[in-house]
Amino acid sequence: MDAYSGQISRLIAELSKLPGIGAKSAQRLAFHIINMPEDQVESLAETIVTARKKTHYCKSCFNLTDADLCPICADSGRDHNTIMVVETPRDLAAYEKTQKYTGVYHVLHGAISPMLGIGPSDIRLKELMVRLQEDVSELIIATNSTLEGETTAMYISKLVKPTGIKVTRIASGVPVGGDLEYIDEVTLLRALDGRVEL
Amino acid sequence: MDAYSGQISRLIAELSKLPGIGAKSAQRLAFHIINMPEDQVESLAETIVTARKKTHYCKSCFNLTDADLCPICADSGRDHNTIMVVETPRDLAAYEKTQKYTGVYHVLHGAISPMLGIGPSDIRLKELMVRLQEDVSELIIATNSTLEGETTAMYISKLVKPTGIKVTRIASGVPVGGDLEYIDEVTLLRALDGRVEL
Repeated sequence: MDAYSGQISRLIAELSKLPGIGAKSAQRLAFHIINMPEDQVESLAETIVTARKKTHYCKSCFNLTDADLCPICADSGRDHNTIMVVETPRDLAAYEKTQKYTGVYHVLHGAISPMLGIGPSDIRLKELMVRLQEDVSELIIATNSTLEGETTAMYISKLVKPTGIKVTRIASGVPVGGDLEYIDEVTLLRALDGRVEL
Repeated sequence: MDAYSGQISRLIAELSKLPGIGAKSAQRLAFHIINMPEDQVESLAETIVTARKKTHYCKSCFNLTDADLCPICADSGRDHNTIMVVETPRDLAAYEKTQKYTGVYHVLHGAISPMLGIGPSDIRLKELMVRLQEDVSELIIATNSTLEGETTAMYISKLVKPTGIKVTRIASGVPVGGDLEYIDEVTLLRALDGRVEL
């Protein structure tokens, strides 16, 4: 039977629908929310709704933003001639955390996947090609090191190379701190193929 | 620098404050919310606020509820002469999940902890004593098997025994499926002390 009343059960059910939130975490979150001051709960709810309402894609790179341009595209201090192509805004965020990349991005919002029926026209590829008509010196392809990511990288590379723009791909290999013993064979072979002189 | 605009960063910051939600999970949840249909986001926010607003303590057992009495206290099919004392509504929920306990509960909302300065008057003990003036045949103390839980159990036991009501304590011992090798000494000794004849 249901130990609590409707409102709590409803909250637990709604929270369980979120990714990575199981039944236990949902219950824990629900109890936390029930114990929060009412104004904080209202602020949380308002933040959720506002973020959803105001957020859209950057009109240049398709990163998420609540302005016309995302903070990166709007930053004149960045190198707008170097574009890094990523699959999702989370991949973009991962590179931003390194604080070393000074170029701009292009978010595809997916990768080509014949298996899932996702073709070149289903991702933001046409928009990338339009951007390449501007003054671009290098296109760095940072799609994931998966079948879909590699397929997408190859596709973009073939499409862009005739334009004369330099197209590069981020290296794949053994992760820093990685113990060879636990790394899969494909990665090991990739690391070998990609070896550099010391 | 901040890769996203204000609204998303604000949402990630708010979500990070929730228990068990780290920076990574908060980001993941935020992106999920941004991608949810707007009406679902509004429904989630509304559920959160409503649950917080409408939820209060059951006037009898102090379980969480949105009615006067919680579903358990309101259930005339339950044995109202047997009361199980627990520390939190989550402990109550854990016992309800067994679907075998047919009595009612009393939620203390804490445990006595001299270390944290939590005394008997800081938990719902006075209210328990009032309930014991009714027709109660057994009081089962199911506070946690921690220093605070044990202290609270002893305290309640001493308080209630003079009234002649039967006071019991849930058993402590080796958890079902537990491998002796990995169980701490205190538990092993408890299990030995609490051995029952076969």
